Amino acid sequence: MNTFFNPSSVVVIGASNSPFNLGATICRSLSEFTSFQGAKYAVNRKGEDVFGCRGYTRVTDIEGPVDLAVIIAPSKVVPGFVRQCGEKGIRHIVIESSGFSEGGEQGRALQRELDEIRKAYGIRIMGPNCLGVLNTENRFCCFYGLQKDDMETFATESGDISYIIQSGGIVVIVLESFKKDVVKAAKIVSIGNKSDIDEADMIEYYGADTKTKVIGMYLENISSGRKFLEKARRVNKPILAFKVGRTGEGVKAAQSHTAGMANNDLIFDAACKQAGIIRVNSISELHALPKIFTRMPPLKGRRIAVFTNSGAFGGITADLLVENGLEMARLSPETQERLSRTGQIFNVRNPIDLGPALSMQTFLEIFDILLASDEVDGLLPVPSLWHPMVIEAIMELVKKCHAYGKPAAVYTPNATHKTISYREKYDVPLFESPEEAVRALSVSFRQYGYSLMKEEAARKTSVQEHMRRPAEGCSDYAAEA
Amino acid sequence: MNTFFNPSSVVVIGASNSPFNLGATICRSLSEFTSFQGAKYAVNRKGEDVFGCRGYTRVTDIEGPVDLAVIIAPSKVVPGFVRQCGEKGIRHIVIESSGFSEGGEQGRALQRELDEIRKAYGIRIMGPNCLGVLNTENRFCCFYGLQKDDMETFATESGDISYIIQSGGIVVIVLESFKKDVVKAAKIVSIGNKSDIDEADMIEYYGADTKTKVIGMYLENISSGRKFLEKARRVNKPILAFKVGRTGEGVKAAQSHTAGMANNDLIFDAACKQAGIIRVNSISELHALPKIFTRMPPLKGRRIAVFTNSGAFGGITADLLVENGLEMARLSPETQERLSRTGQIFNVRNPIDLGPALSMQTFLEIFDILLASDEVDGLLPVPSLWHPMVIEAIMELVKKCHAYGKPAAVYTPNATHKTISYREKYDVPLFESPEEAVRALSVSFRQYGYSLMKEEAARKTSVQEHMRRPAEGCSDYAAEA
Repeated sequence: MNTFFNPSSVVVIGASNSPFNLGATICRSLSEFTSFQGAKYAVNRKGEDVFGCRGYTRVTDIEGPVDLAVIIAPSKVVPGFVRQCGEKGIRHIVIESSGFSEGGEQGRALQRELDEIRKAYGIRIMGPNCLGVLNTENRFCCFYGLQKDDMETFATESGDISYIIQSGGIVVIVLESFKKDVVKAAKIVSIGNKSDIDEADMIEYYGADTKTKVIGMYLENISSGRKFLEKARRVNKPILAFKVGRTGEGVKAAQSHTAGMANNDLIFDAACKQAGIIRVNSISELHALPKIFTRMPPLKGRRIAVFTNSGAFGGITADLLVENGLEMARLSPETQERLSRTGQIFNVRNPIDLGPALSMQTFLEIFDILLASDEVDGLLPVPSLWHPMVIEAIMELVKKCHAYGKPAAVYTPNATHKTISYREKYDVPLFESPEEAVRALSVSFRQYGYSLMKEEAARKTSVQEHMRRPAEGCSDYAAEA
Repeated sequence: MNTFFNPSSVVVIGASNSPFNLGATICRSLSEFTSFQGAKYAVNRKGEDVFGCRGYTRVTDIEGPVDLAVIIAPSKVVPGFVRQCGEKGIRHIVIESSGFSEGGEQGRALQRELDEIRKAYGIRIMGPNCLGVLNTENRFCCFYGLQKDDMETFATESGDISYIIQSGGIVVIVLESFKKDVVKAAKIVSIGNKSDIDEADMIEYYGADTKTKVIGMYLENISSGRKFLEKARRVNKPILAFKVGRTGEGVKAAQSHTAGMANNDLIFDAACKQAGIIRVNSISELHALPKIFTRMPPLKGRRIAVFTNSGAFGGITADLLVENGLEMARLSPETQERLSRTGQIFNVRNPIDLGPALSMQTFLEIFDILLASDEVDGLLPVPSLWHPMVIEAIMELVKKCHAYGKPAAVYTPNATHKTISYREKYDVPLFESPEEAVRALSVSFRQYGYSLMKEEAARKTSVQEHMRRPAEGCSDYAAEA
């Protein structure tokens, strides 16, 4: 699988110098925008070079070895090219062309043909009807249609969130959003019709990938429920999934897009719970929530302390916490007493109302009191950014959270554009709305539960394996275990 | 009520030159930041002038007439000042001080005292525990703590959305958000503890205000359910309400903030339905949704046509439409045939998949076909902004929507910061997420129903009044009517 993300030589099949040729955009970005340093080839009718990729009419004519083929030719000629790849010894192919199982009986027949050829040669295929791969670490990317500035938007920095995304349109939103956020992408695949490589294969791969700390998925269907469950269960990293097809209309729309048989949504939901996968409610949650995992310790209990200097947010967040299965922490008289000694606090009961005027010192004292208290599992600070000191206090809070092993989901009550600009400028994990902050705490708590479940399962498995080992060859003992 | 928004003379009671004096910030903004041109006075212990406001020790010492008093003094001296205002003949007072019914028995006693004085003199009071008034038309504002740039953020342009907001913190978010949106605020009041003027009074006032086209509310409680219902029923403008206290924890938090008795949320919900008020789900909806009313015709039916060049959004929006009580329009074979003649369309059934490449001409033809079709009540376009032509097409779409009398809620699948910048630059009503666009259509449809209901009720009332008129003095006829 690693060859898809780190090939040493690539051929783009279907790339030519004709106007509007999509393959040419891949050749161009391999030569000009990405950091790809390996051998590059193009296959087209005339055998012409395309943007620095040496041209051939047949894959088998290429002299040197080729790791990866990217095919973006009309669907009916694709099987022939896959066969050429097989003959050439290429074992990794991204098929970006559409016109397969998402497009009627003829397309389905073509996709079946692909399957046969692939199996005959032992080829792994990504797609068809996909964008393929982006690896931010080595800046390799085989998306078509990439523009000059896109790699700056998509992969200026390499991060630790990897995605499995059935649709190209979603890839763009996620990557654009990261441009102004404190988390960044590691690897992204758009897997399209999933004729071979599917979400379960990718979960397994990302599970073992040391760069990947969080996995995000946009799915229109599941190829195999059993395989999905099996692979996801073994991966103890946060896995966030957004799925369309919650309604009949959504199912119909998705079918015309990436061709999968729709899965019953209730079954998918149950599978996620069993597999320890967190369902998210929107595309924006796929890029907004991971920072609670990468920038904060896990939430190990439900009891949240809210503090704000805009009283309204006490009520707003209290409603949201309860609606998201969390609780307002009950502060003991001792804790309240300690809080009241820090200065001008309006209300020392949770939600704690700080009032408008506070010093840095007061902020830090409040953080320590709440984080040290065994009545509190996590914080939901909603401080108005009325003074530059407040953002410095938030930066200190992030450090303290790690020291105490408890998370804070910070929302500064501002217009979205202002929150985004503060977050970018000061590199602090700010959430864009109170809803988002509360959701982040809620998924952190759920993930904590899943991680315990998966650790326990892994322990059991390893105990079973351990018990089996000395008994190898001894059928009685193995049967007993 | 108009005096609150357009006073010709103001006294700020409790403003002095002491450090951190909040009243001084009001004097300063009246003199320097707002466009207030009338006579300005300050009342304080030393009788000193404050930022260009002539100083007195007693309200009754001021020679000229005074329209409006703004009080921001410690709560226990407030009743005395209100009495002075009464003696001086001031009939409009904003009390910004806190420490009344939100703060224990002593505070409640003070608020009762205010009530008695107010009634004795026939004074109208806004607050206590509030920010008072902002009128963007004449740039009058009596908020405390205003900074130099705030009026540029809050009132550069005057718009047509007026707000009733119990809490100051919410005012800031709404106004900041408008800075980069295509709708602007008209008037805003923060009504705090509502000892006298409440949300129902403000609904009545905004209902008659010609500048106000949409009313937004942030509420922690309702002063009088009956009055609220009565006033709201007579106002045939979209009224959006966000209320905290949906859960027990939210109720508790709100009580400590603005002191109202919490109302049962189910009762509030029922009251909204009877009064034709739309409940919104978040603070952000209070500023994000009004553009569907001010920039688009109403949605008169449930049938929505979706078109996108990112197939994933077909499924995403189809799910959201159904979940929000709307429907995917069924396009007849004739309409599908007409669509397929426009060019390279991938899928002519709803959701319509445009594919990546389209000309301006094709866009315009699609708009005309869908808007003219009696199978479609409104549009949900999700076009990728891959080319500047697309934004021009959206600008044309806005015009066509008005021509056909059907709305479109446009979402361009981009990161939020990019959508916000396009919206601002091209002045088009873009929504920031597919969820927001679908919600906008859904509230537009609901409002259309409410407007018919209110028109009908108004007609009945006027018929009854008409029938009563000739019979005046004739009790038999009146009884019959």
